[in-house]
Amino acid sequence: MIGLLEIYIEKTINFESGVTNLGQKKISRAVISRLPRYYRYLGELLEEGKERISSNELSKRMNVTASQIRQDLNNFGGFGQQGYGYNVKTLSDEIAKLLGLDKEHNVVIIGAGNIGQAIANYHAFDRSGFRLKGMFDIDPALEGLEVRGGIKVRLMDELEDFLKENDIEIVALTIPKTEALEVAKRVTKCGVKGIWNFTHKELNLPEDVTVESVHLSDSLMKLFYKMNSNEESNK
Amino acid sequence: MIGLLEIYIEKTINFESGVTNLGQKKISRAVISRLPRYYRYLGELLEEGKERISSNELSKRMNVTASQIRQDLNNFGGFGQQGYGYNVKTLSDEIAKLLGLDKEHNVVIIGAGNIGQAIANYHAFDRSGFRLKGMFDIDPALEGLEVRGGIKVRLMDELEDFLKENDIEIVALTIPKTEALEVAKRVTKCGVKGIWNFTHKELNLPEDVTVESVHLSDSLMKLFYKMNSNEESNK
Repeated sequence: MIGLLEIYIEKTINFESGVTNLGQKKISRAVISRLPRYYRYLGELLEEGKERISSNELSKRMNVTASQIRQDLNNFGGFGQQGYGYNVKTLSDEIAKLLGLDKEHNVVIIGAGNIGQAIANYHAFDRSGFRLKGMFDIDPALEGLEVRGGIKVRLMDELEDFLKENDIEIVALTIPKTEALEVAKRVTKCGVKGIWNFTHKELNLPEDVTVESVHLSDSLMKLFYKMNSNEESNK
Repeated sequence: MIGLLEIYIEKTINFESGVTNLGQKKISRAVISRLPRYYRYLGELLEEGKERISSNELSKRMNVTASQIRQDLNNFGGFGQQGYGYNVKTLSDEIAKLLGLDKEHNVVIIGAGNIGQAIANYHAFDRSGFRLKGMFDIDPALEGLEVRGGIKVRLMDELEDFLKENDIEIVALTIPKTEALEVAKRVTKCGVKGIWNFTHKELNLPEDVTVESVHLSDSLMKLFYKMNSNEESNK
């Protein structure tokens, strides 16, 4: 059993055992948890058309020490070269593989309110393998509303068939919390393995279902708390 | 200098020194980071009309051991009583004080798109002292749109005056990331001390400004990564 955030490289990037001596190297939970941030910055560099970057430049942008960056990235192969730096595309691709972003994930959003529509239209997600296949709502007034190129809101009675026919792995739940658990149970019965949960309700589901919750209220409390401590410490 | 998530009780809940022997007790960063979650659950209990709860019941609901709960809550006073449990309202109020949620915070949202409107309408935030005072956008077509009881979208040329006249402490940024830094600088010049940042852009601002970022793409990557590891470990 391998911890969620603690992996062996050979498992995740599928190096055949023996092909590389990195095969047995363990990447710490802390490094893995920093990878999405690296990936985000590398994406910005790609958008700007930058082909390579030194650890010093990346350090300034990310507000992390250059030695931390070198240490983190050396963990999975050290692609940086003296006097050249890192190749942005290669590094981004390697991190994508480590995080499993090189695979496509078919997604359905349930709840066509503001949050649901916002997620549907974040084109930045496409880069991570997010493939929006369908959008559902309980409200007949929304049926047929086009939320994104060709994708129209469907009603909940079509849900089960749609999930199975379209090989949906992930459901984003952007519905009231009172409905959250019931809908989550419905979709996991159809083979959905991941729930992106915006409902402010914690979901206890079978172990083989992964739940990632976005608790906006926790984030807001953190902001208040940090502001409060900041004020107190400046007194 | 006190770390952001490491506080002395007397600072935050303003116990006069000497009035209580809790005065010098330090609450660990780990406990503080769990408090928003306790607060969320206690809010659910209040909504259900529950007046008291035992650590065992709370443990089942939150999927945390009862001894962890007792340990965490004893940190700031041990309101639990043998055979009675915790008084839900008292506990919730104490956590609110620790997190600084008992104070009101005047908020303006900049960006009246889907995310901005979603935040404006999350009534759950009201309980944490979130007071929406205004909503701004760059798009003249949105001017005057009512987003929530009496609050209408204003255009950006009114921004500075509005922030100063309404004593705004916090701005939620729900705008494209290309505009994020410029707008953040504009508002901090008007005395705003906290930015709730949804822009997918990291903001480096003066030290006395607190930034709390919601990176939805990081959350999505975490979901993909956890699903990937889950699959691998089940092979």
